[in-house]
Amino acid sequence: MSQTLQSVEKEFLNYVKKMTHMNEAIGLMYWDLRTGAPKKGVSQRSEVIGTLSADVFAMSTSDEMKKYIEELSVSSVYDSLSEVTKKTLDEVKKDYDRNTKIPADEFKEYVILQSKAESIWEEARAKSDFAMFQPYLEKLVEFNKRFIGYWGYEGNKYNTLLDMYEPGVTVEILDETFAKLRDRIVPLLQKVTEAGKPETAFLFEAFPKEKQKEFSLHVLKEMGYDFESGRLDETVHPFAIGLNTGDVRVTTRYVEKDFRTAIFGTIHEGGHALYEQNLSEALVGTPLSTGTSMGIHESQSLFWENFVGRHQGFWNHHYASLKQYAGSQFDNVDLESFYKAINVVEPSLIRIEADEMTYPLHVIVRYEIEKGLFNDEIEVKDLPRIWNEKMQGYLGVKPENDSEGVLQDVHWSGGSFGYFPSYALGYIYAAQLKEALIRDLPDFDQLVEKGDLKPVQEWLSKNIHQYGKMKKPMEILQDVTGEGLNPDYLIRYFEEKYSSLYQLN
Amino acid sequence: MSQTLQSVEKEFLNYVKKMTHMNEAIGLMYWDLRTGAPKKGVSQRSEVIGTLSADVFAMSTSDEMKKYIEELSVSSVYDSLSEVTKKTLDEVKKDYDRNTKIPADEFKEYVILQSKAESIWEEARAKSDFAMFQPYLEKLVEFNKRFIGYWGYEGNKYNTLLDMYEPGVTVEILDETFAKLRDRIVPLLQKVTEAGKPETAFLFEAFPKEKQKEFSLHVLKEMGYDFESGRLDETVHPFAIGLNTGDVRVTTRYVEKDFRTAIFGTIHEGGHALYEQNLSEALVGTPLSTGTSMGIHESQSLFWENFVGRHQGFWNHHYASLKQYAGSQFDNVDLESFYKAINVVEPSLIRIEADEMTYPLHVIVRYEIEKGLFNDEIEVKDLPRIWNEKMQGYLGVKPENDSEGVLQDVHWSGGSFGYFPSYALGYIYAAQLKEALIRDLPDFDQLVEKGDLKPVQEWLSKNIHQYGKMKKPMEILQDVTGEGLNPDYLIRYFEEKYSSLYQLN
Repeated sequence: MSQTLQSVEKEFLNYVKKMTHMNEAIGLMYWDLRTGAPKKGVSQRSEVIGTLSADVFAMSTSDEMKKYIEELSVSSVYDSLSEVTKKTLDEVKKDYDRNTKIPADEFKEYVILQSKAESIWEEARAKSDFAMFQPYLEKLVEFNKRFIGYWGYEGNKYNTLLDMYEPGVTVEILDETFAKLRDRIVPLLQKVTEAGKPETAFLFEAFPKEKQKEFSLHVLKEMGYDFESGRLDETVHPFAIGLNTGDVRVTTRYVEKDFRTAIFGTIHEGGHALYEQNLSEALVGTPLSTGTSMGIHESQSLFWENFVGRHQGFWNHHYASLKQYAGSQFDNVDLESFYKAINVVEPSLIRIEADEMTYPLHVIVRYEIEKGLFNDEIEVKDLPRIWNEKMQGYLGVKPENDSEGVLQDVHWSGGSFGYFPSYALGYIYAAQLKEALIRDLPDFDQLVEKGDLKPVQEWLSKNIHQYGKMKKPMEILQDVTGEGLNPDYLIRYFEEKYSSLYQLN
Repeated sequence: MSQTLQSVEKEFLNYVKKMTHMNEAIGLMYWDLRTGAPKKGVSQRSEVIGTLSADVFAMSTSDEMKKYIEELSVSSVYDSLSEVTKKTLDEVKKDYDRNTKIPADEFKEYVILQSKAESIWEEARAKSDFAMFQPYLEKLVEFNKRFIGYWGYEGNKYNTLLDMYEPGVTVEILDETFAKLRDRIVPLLQKVTEAGKPETAFLFEAFPKEKQKEFSLHVLKEMGYDFESGRLDETVHPFAIGLNTGDVRVTTRYVEKDFRTAIFGTIHEGGHALYEQNLSEALVGTPLSTGTSMGIHESQSLFWENFVGRHQGFWNHHYASLKQYAGSQFDNVDLESFYKAINVVEPSLIRIEADEMTYPLHVIVRYEIEKGLFNDEIEVKDLPRIWNEKMQGYLGVKPENDSEGVLQDVHWSGGSFGYFPSYALGYIYAAQLKEALIRDLPDFDQLVEKGDLKPVQEWLSKNIHQYGKMKKPMEILQDVTGEGLNPDYLIRYFEEKYSSLYQLN
């Protein structure tokens, strides 16, 4: 590579690094707003976030960025770049194309619509009044259809939206995968429901918040979460956030009369955090220094939450300790009853409160609706009816009103279509990855039972975390498991676990 | 004003607002680093702060800024600007001139020297080895002399440095003021020392940190600190920081065996915070939205710490409550003994541990040395000797080594010359402002005794806080007190308080 090009590559990387720095500052402000920023400073802080975000957006679509992309994309030049620069270029190019193809006026109008729609949605949900939200949702869908027109699509219009969150995943793949999953969960759920619900009342007694926190910290430590690279704080809607690999923060919520929120929530967010703490140092300062997709990220949180946190061995190991933290709550509850209670399966209306088996069905309902909307097979005005029919069909429950039905999630009000499938993909990935992990660590069950989780974390870091966005989700999956997306492992997990728990045979 | 000029004014204010937004983000990162940011993320976070700071610096010296300054400074244009725009322009022009007059290469060299010098100073202080630090200090002084050459000066070279922290204050004023203060404190201190030291041992018992925090929160609330616009956190070197008027955070430090650190420290920082919480809304988004100078800021913290927090009436009101928070620590200590103990006066070596009466002498030592350095009357190599002589002369104590002498403060290692006088000015201002306050609130003593501090806070906000940088320090002083800098009120405060406390007559 010539001297000039070397210096262009260097300038480009510096330019991109500056964007990651701005994003880190934005990330800290976001974390702060959600963990105790004083109320009266919020509106001013939101303006500051707006200023910095506008700057990053401007940088991502600037003439300077265009010049870098053009110069470095010439194939003889591209071939001579380092792997990290190549992937970085691919990332920023994707953003550049997406952001510049929409006419500026239209994008501005859309941003205003998004923020209006979100506040209207809040009100509509509170009043359970879909009609109020309907015209906004119609416009949001309309805008996204037009954007797909600008962006182009392959095979199915909805693919373009899916690609934003889960590159490589298409309607063709999801139709087959989700149909299979749905068709196997629905009858299993039927059987489980008929088998009767285990005792759960003892879960809902007072468990001091301070003690929930101590137990959460203990578990995070055991998972391999590095407290010199993170901290645990309280919030309303828990999340994990990677500011840089040395500063990955977990948040949780303590509900006094339901310890599950904090414990399983912390394990879940801890799973996300391990991903961000164990990214390769070589990616620092590039947009590659984060999880490769929403779905793979979710596979990590769900792996820990369900395959570790809801594992029988985990509680063989921790139950005595939990009892101590809890005081007298579980004095008359044996381990088996406890284990059954925290794995109760029960069809319900609200996605974020669903158990692990019914959860994918909630997601599939949304997938089918979104796909229908973008293929002109479903109209927005019919959503409440269609929603309720699908819930009845797959889960056997029917919302009494739209606030516990079609209005329950914030996503659509912000124009996020194509995001929901990632949640179910995370489950499917997690089960596939677990299968591969067990090939390398055949004593996985024993490790969990001993609380020796370090080898598990290390395996995940080595096979998934370190790569960040250097590998696409499907590449990760193929490299680690030797196959593509396959729901069979998740189905088998459900069938084996719940057949045994509910003695179905 | 023409349409074009109106739009230039608007663009200029937007440009400046963006700088304040960047500074707010930097401020939050600074706060976070000092209140619990994970250790391993610090070096990366420092780079982010560096990136944003460089951006703000670039904006403050850009061609765009130059154009605004030139266009808006034309006198016919300037006269038509709003008062806020005028003062904003004055501020940014001062920065622009200061930052652009130094050749870029020289400034870069200086920045590198600063950071080296600071780490060398740390090591030198630890080893008590002035010779190690001397060449760096010499270079720092040399650079600043050259800068004064670029910047120009009036009357005395040191005035240019003073002006950075306390505009309007000159060597002429300080020579007279500090000499008077020194010549009255020194003999008073002599008498106090001869009168014998009150009992203080009971101060140094264990006072649970959690309880210190509760008492601190209680006092902050009483002072009128708005917790919806702020929060109290723990740190190593306490500070207050105004991110915006709705987000002004206080930090403190809890020393189990010396409750005074947290209590008086919190009141002190709370005084700074009240200033920042009560700035006029009209100044938001401009560089005027902060305290007008280091000295006036310090006058607010010292007013609260000493004239309220060390007031007899304050403890008449709070002592019973403090005893409850403390457990049994003060069971056998009557109010009078307690009051005497927290007002103990004792010459000592370390400035930041000094009592209110000896504190100004520590500052005067530094002032005289700095003035001598910049007028070529003192050489860096002679500093340890001169320092020790002055300490002996004014305070009657002599450092055993340079780490408790000339090496004790960080300021010089960062090239901050001209800063120290602000600390003593804060005391003098505070006493003058108190005199004016009592003219409007003649029942000040009773208000403190009743814990009815709202009128005090409101008076300070109305007369000082709201103006931010709209008024210069000397303007504030003149408008509020009707006179210029005058140390008599502080001297009288010391003489009356300590004559009575130590029964000197």
